[in-house]
Amino acid sequence: MVRPWRALHRARGWAALAGLQARPDKFGGVSVNLAELSQPLCLERAIFGRWLRGLRPEGATARGVSEAAVAFSLRCSLSLAGAVAQWREEGCTAVWLHVPIFQSGFAAAAASQGFTFHHAEQGSSTLTLWLGEGPSRLPGYATHQLGVAGAVLHESTGKVLVVQDRNKTTDAWKFPGGLSNPGEDIGDTAVREVFEETGIKSEFKSILSIRQQHEYPGAFGKSDMYIICRLEPSSFNISFCQQECVRCEWMDLGELAQTKLATPITSNIAKLLLYGYREGFDKIDITMREFPAVSTGFFYKLYHRELPESYRSIM
Amino acid sequence: MVRPWRALHRARGWAALAGLQARPDKFGGVSVNLAELSQPLCLERAIFGRWLRGLRPEGATARGVSEAAVAFSLRCSLSLAGAVAQWREEGCTAVWLHVPIFQSGFAAAAASQGFTFHHAEQGSSTLTLWLGEGPSRLPGYATHQLGVAGAVLHESTGKVLVVQDRNKTTDAWKFPGGLSNPGEDIGDTAVREVFEETGIKSEFKSILSIRQQHEYPGAFGKSDMYIICRLEPSSFNISFCQQECVRCEWMDLGELAQTKLATPITSNIAKLLLYGYREGFDKIDITMREFPAVSTGFFYKLYHRELPESYRSIM
Repeated sequence: MVRPWRALHRARGWAALAGLQARPDKFGGVSVNLAELSQPLCLERAIFGRWLRGLRPEGATARGVSEAAVAFSLRCSLSLAGAVAQWREEGCTAVWLHVPIFQSGFAAAAASQGFTFHHAEQGSSTLTLWLGEGPSRLPGYATHQLGVAGAVLHESTGKVLVVQDRNKTTDAWKFPGGLSNPGEDIGDTAVREVFEETGIKSEFKSILSIRQQHEYPGAFGKSDMYIICRLEPSSFNISFCQQECVRCEWMDLGELAQTKLATPITSNIAKLLLYGYREGFDKIDITMREFPAVSTGFFYKLYHRELPESYRSIM
Repeated sequence: MVRPWRALHRARGWAALAGLQARPDKFGGVSVNLAELSQPLCLERAIFGRWLRGLRPEGATARGVSEAAVAFSLRCSLSLAGAVAQWREEGCTAVWLHVPIFQSGFAAAAASQGFTFHHAEQGSSTLTLWLGEGPSRLPGYATHQLGVAGAVLHESTGKVLVVQDRNKTTDAWKFPGGLSNPGEDIGDTAVREVFEETGIKSEFKSILSIRQQHEYPGAFGKSDMYIICRLEPSSFNISFCQQECVRCEWMDLGELAQTKLATPITSNIAKLLLYGYREGFDKIDITMREFPAVSTGFFYKLYHRELPESYRSIM
């Protein structure tokens, strides 16, 4: 027989689950964090984990530990079924479950109640169950990886920094670049990747182009946003990463714009950069301004075309 | 005693695991998919799941099912420990485990061997263990959500479409917009969100600005990329979504550029749009070109400043 979770909490014998609370959110959902499981259950799982690693705790038999662990799963699942029934009755729109990786058996139990993964990272996963009307209106998880490349142009010689990737089958020239680290600004990724791949130090000047591509190879089914920045070099002696590149050169920009030995996007952006180099970078630059973010207290960066002072100060 | 996985496979009594294969990748890692578990074990788990949902299969006792499930976890974990030891010896750099949600108990077992979540979505999770030298060089998962807004400008009247959000505390004007769906192009998100929120039909013209913000509220610790597009309306009668908005208006662009009742980014982009409206959209537009993607056979969209034909055709 399935009974509401709260009732189970109060029932004799279920006290071990009492550490768990369901927190309402402002969208009509509730959130439960299994990391708050009461101490004895955590210990039970820890003992199980040690047993798995061959460090059998004194006095624990295989069967004893096994039964404790399965009993835990069953208890969780049955009380979850009851809790879900109650939340549904109360008009709750959604349930969020945060599950530490060592409690992952609970994710299987929750799946049998209709929960699916929303996301997971490092040591924990988050599952959701939509209880509202119609299709789920829950927000999705991150959909894009961000790659950033740097077109480093040495203005006085008209030469631009290019590499050939080790992991590619074609020997096409491209701008050095790579995936953005979590929390890293676009320009910082460009400068870091250029330095790591080529040994050249540089400074961010502007964004030149943005490419969006879906179901990107190697992005685990996700989309790729690829941004090429214009950078100004502050060092010139190449010392390239042998693991990532087979070649690295300062190449004449006009030559790069014309060669067939370049990836299509490199060729396009080389032509754009050549246009800017000859007729003024203001023709091609998407420049950056920094603003305080009201909600977080941090700063954010906004990229757009240069806005004349007369328009900035309109009041 | 820990023995290599392959040996365990051959050992009497372990045959049930024989369905699993470790596939090498081109970066020196291996990948194991638990969805390939042999039929009898899947059935065992299915029976367990049915039991959890109260649909006790004929002839199955609680203890019998429990023991089978735990025995499965133990077998997986012990054989995984052996397999990891062997992969390490063979110079393998990384292990990827793909775990169906109903097999999630295995994620806990894998965690005790040092595995962590790489990502999870819907009905499965992926765990990784780095075995190479130094810090992990495995690619991360998607780091950004993408929000897109539309600045819909009616050129002949100089009015622009603005809304006030229902879920915000301030009654500030902003451009309608929202999160991009998986696989959706930037311009399509802008057009869809504008229509859903305001009932106005429109066409994508250009990108006006890009904002990057980290640890964005509501983005589960991830970064937010927010793009504002310039759209041209093809319908004018507002019929706004009462769930999302409290107000929706065609507002004079000059007024929007000056009012204090607008979010800071709206105010900035209104000024930029006014500049383009008065002095030519070519001053502010980041336009789109479409190219075939060699790797996927699909097309991708590249956004940058308009490139004169004379430069496009350089050979």
